[in-house]
Amino acid sequence: MFTGLSAFPLTPMNETGIDEMALVQLLKRLASARVDSIGVLGSTGSYVYLNREERLRVTQLAIEYAEGIPIMIGISALRTRDVLQLAEDAQKAGANAVLLAPVSYQQLTDDEVFSLYETVTKSLSIPLCVYDNPSTTQFRFSDHLHGHIARLPIVHSIKIPGVPDFDSAKQRVEQLRAHIPKDVSIGTSGDPYAVVGLTAGCEAWYSVLGGLYPDICISITRAALGGNSVNAERQSAFLAPLWQMFQKYGSLRVVATIAEIQGLINNPSLPLPLKSLDGVARQELGNILADLQLEIPLC
Amino acid sequence: MFTGLSAFPLTPMNETGIDEMALVQLLKRLASARVDSIGVLGSTGSYVYLNREERLRVTQLAIEYAEGIPIMIGISALRTRDVLQLAEDAQKAGANAVLLAPVSYQQLTDDEVFSLYETVTKSLSIPLCVYDNPSTTQFRFSDHLHGHIARLPIVHSIKIPGVPDFDSAKQRVEQLRAHIPKDVSIGTSGDPYAVVGLTAGCEAWYSVLGGLYPDICISITRAALGGNSVNAERQSAFLAPLWQMFQKYGSLRVVATIAEIQGLINNPSLPLPLKSLDGVARQELGNILADLQLEIPLC
Repeated sequence: MFTGLSAFPLTPMNETGIDEMALVQLLKRLASARVDSIGVLGSTGSYVYLNREERLRVTQLAIEYAEGIPIMIGISALRTRDVLQLAEDAQKAGANAVLLAPVSYQQLTDDEVFSLYETVTKSLSIPLCVYDNPSTTQFRFSDHLHGHIARLPIVHSIKIPGVPDFDSAKQRVEQLRAHIPKDVSIGTSGDPYAVVGLTAGCEAWYSVLGGLYPDICISITRAALGGNSVNAERQSAFLAPLWQMFQKYGSLRVVATIAEIQGLINNPSLPLPLKSLDGVARQELGNILADLQLEIPLC
Repeated sequence: MFTGLSAFPLTPMNETGIDEMALVQLLKRLASARVDSIGVLGSTGSYVYLNREERLRVTQLAIEYAEGIPIMIGISALRTRDVLQLAEDAQKAGANAVLLAPVSYQQLTDDEVFSLYETVTKSLSIPLCVYDNPSTTQFRFSDHLHGHIARLPIVHSIKIPGVPDFDSAKQRVEQLRAHIPKDVSIGTSGDPYAVVGLTAGCEAWYSVLGGLYPDICISITRAALGGNSVNAERQSAFLAPLWQMFQKYGSLRVVATIAEIQGLINNPSLPLPLKSLDGVARQELGNILADLQLEIPLC
């Protein structure tokens, strides 16, 4: 399940709770598009803002509405104690895999991060994907540490940050590959650089936009992994105005605003203090959507 | 209460819960030393790793054992919803003030951070101290934003990061002072630079070491604020080996390890994945403590 397009949907919510109806609609779109896997409660799913009960509910809904598509559940938390509880909840609910980032407040040491993964993997029997995202966790993995963690029994994939250009991405993938077992896949994130990552040797795209527009993201993934990089690049270039908005405002605020504008979810949809775009930025995004005319099939 | 030495004690804990007996001993030391205020559930109090019930319990114990010394409670959380609950808990329990940092996972905008402070201050009637600590929150305040927030009714102080040298600290304090109301105090953190901050115009020292060794930290604060900067510098220089350990391993790990070595708290005392120092680093710290011969009066 750690190859192809892994789509990360939003968890629509307001200050009173999760909008379960809207979440189910987003999940149905992904099931209907037949993405390769669904990653709920990733950064795009605002996992870190939800409590244990809410995270369990999202997990249950994802499994219920996935129509057999493999489900990966984000189990990250600041404290190991909480990660272990979330891991147990995900496994009991029937998740196919879990995603774990070394979320930090106090800066973590390599030894502390390794112990976290060692402890959590010992408690699990389903596969784990290592979530490497320094922009949110403030933790930077060395390749040595990646190699050490990737040799733990149930580690099957590493989700790496995007690299902007092909040569750097190829070098990054080759360097990391030299440190980890052959059967551990490398998946790229950072949607604007997904095609670069896939053509440079990543086996999966852990995708934000794929959680909202699965069809075009599947098409890009198939082209890139099938050796048709020109086609993949052309499709990604078509989405360039969205990638620019991602870089300016953060991908979460942008996809939440798109989903609000398209009427897929209500406004507000993000946990305060986070807000979706308003004013000029929202207008700009509306204009981009009108230009691109991306399909929003209703489920 | 936002002047002088504000001492931030550890919250000793293990994976099963808070060590209340050990916490009470730490609180009694501070009450006995007559620090100017006590800041529980700051970064040194590991607030972010505790759940709501645990934070309420620490709050109640602090108020019970403070012997009338003003108590400030850290109410920070990633989500506004949770901050509001913690603010209510602190106020109901009888706290004298609260401390609020813009903790982030997704990078926050200035507008989001202002709205957070606006919402929380509207819900409170006790004073609030703004906690500016980019190394843990990943949020950098502009002076304009500080000024905007400092004009909210119940904001009484700003806890700023330490600045290493006197000229930069003086410039920093003067620049910030130009943006905020006269009655909002500025307090320094970053213990190694406390004397620099106090002699450069800060009215308070929000202190990590003060939570463990209140006597020498009171003495340093009195000297620095009383115009005897040579004496303050001499005392701070005496502690230089500890400041070097703070910079190398993080102040939280170092004070936790000191308290463990001195038998004030049990080992482990930090929430996993965080660990106190072991091996060579612990040995080095033990040697420093033996050299310094800092008093640990038993309460």
